[in-house]
Amino acid sequence: MSDTSNQDAVHLIIQQVISAWDAQNKQVTGFFDKYDDEAYLQPVAAGRNRAVYLLGHLVAVSDGMLPIMGITESLYPELESIFLTSPDGAVAEIPSVSDLKRYWQEVNAKLSGAFQNMQPQDWLERHTRVSEEDFVKNRQRNKLNIVINRTNHTSYHMGQLNFFKAV
Amino acid sequence: MSDTSNQDAVHLIIQQVISAWDAQNKQVTGFFDKYDDEAYLQPVAAGRNRAVYLLGHLVAVSDGMLPIMGITESLYPELESIFLTSPDGAVAEIPSVSDLKRYWQEVNAKLSGAFQNMQPQDWLERHTRVSEEDFVKNRQRNKLNIVINRTNHTSYHMGQLNFFKAV
Repeated sequence: MSDTSNQDAVHLIIQQVISAWDAQNKQVTGFFDKYDDEAYLQPVAAGRNRAVYLLGHLVAVSDGMLPIMGITESLYPELESIFLTSPDGAVAEIPSVSDLKRYWQEVNAKLSGAFQNMQPQDWLERHTRVSEEDFVKNRQRNKLNIVINRTNHTSYHMGQLNFFKAV
Repeated sequence: MSDTSNQDAVHLIIQQVISAWDAQNKQVTGFFDKYDDEAYLQPVAAGRNRAVYLLGHLVAVSDGMLPIMGITESLYPELESIFLTSPDGAVAEIPSVSDLKRYWQEVNAKLSGAFQNMQPQDWLERHTRVSEEDFVKNRQRNKLNIVINRTNHTSYHMGQLNFFKAV
């Protein structure tokens, strides 16, 4: 392909990756707008995580993308010990569904804003959790890969959330 | 970026999308290699799809990618009415777990082989389910998008498969 068409191709493909990310987030947002907040205190299937825990988990993962992608510090670092390193039920006091829904919007808006300002070369830079040495060995460990992988992570839990039956 | 680096970038990003696809498929393969075949005749959660149905569903979706991506006809078109257009339980006689596992390998090998031979411009062509007219309006409806979306689809069901408890 010519220079211009290669440049267009890079831009187009990055936009496709971002579109897929946005689409998955929209599914999550839609799911948590379906019922009253208290409904989400129930597990998604017998003996499995509560919907509220999965929401907190998704917020914590997205929030963790901010430093990994070199955008800013996490907005809600306190979520990590509740929703990433502890299983559901281990921490007695967790944020409310309403607070988590607000964090979800806030963190996603922060990410989206930053994504819009990133140039193609920024996407292909190493993310902050990989060393320069390891990055030279595998250039796939770039910022775009974080979004590709986290989109799949959201889909994974969306499949579980769709098992939820409001009582 | 320079011509060469744009060209490298396109190649790299396409490889990342394929790597994510391969990684998800590997998860599915690993899951269905964990237990004896008959274990997968159980639902993944109370009142939900049987694991064997989800396997058939994933095979049918991957098989459907062959014509959508213009590679070849579907290898197992008979799976569509069992695993795509009918819910679990609607069709009494379905292929065995062992047959479906074989189809899964075969269809994925066919896709992988074709992916290796595709050039960047091939990935950005319209897929066969979108008209030329609609494609002009939205160039994201290309072959690469099929892989991005189907990878998320696999993750979605992988989340559900991981709820499965062998009895």
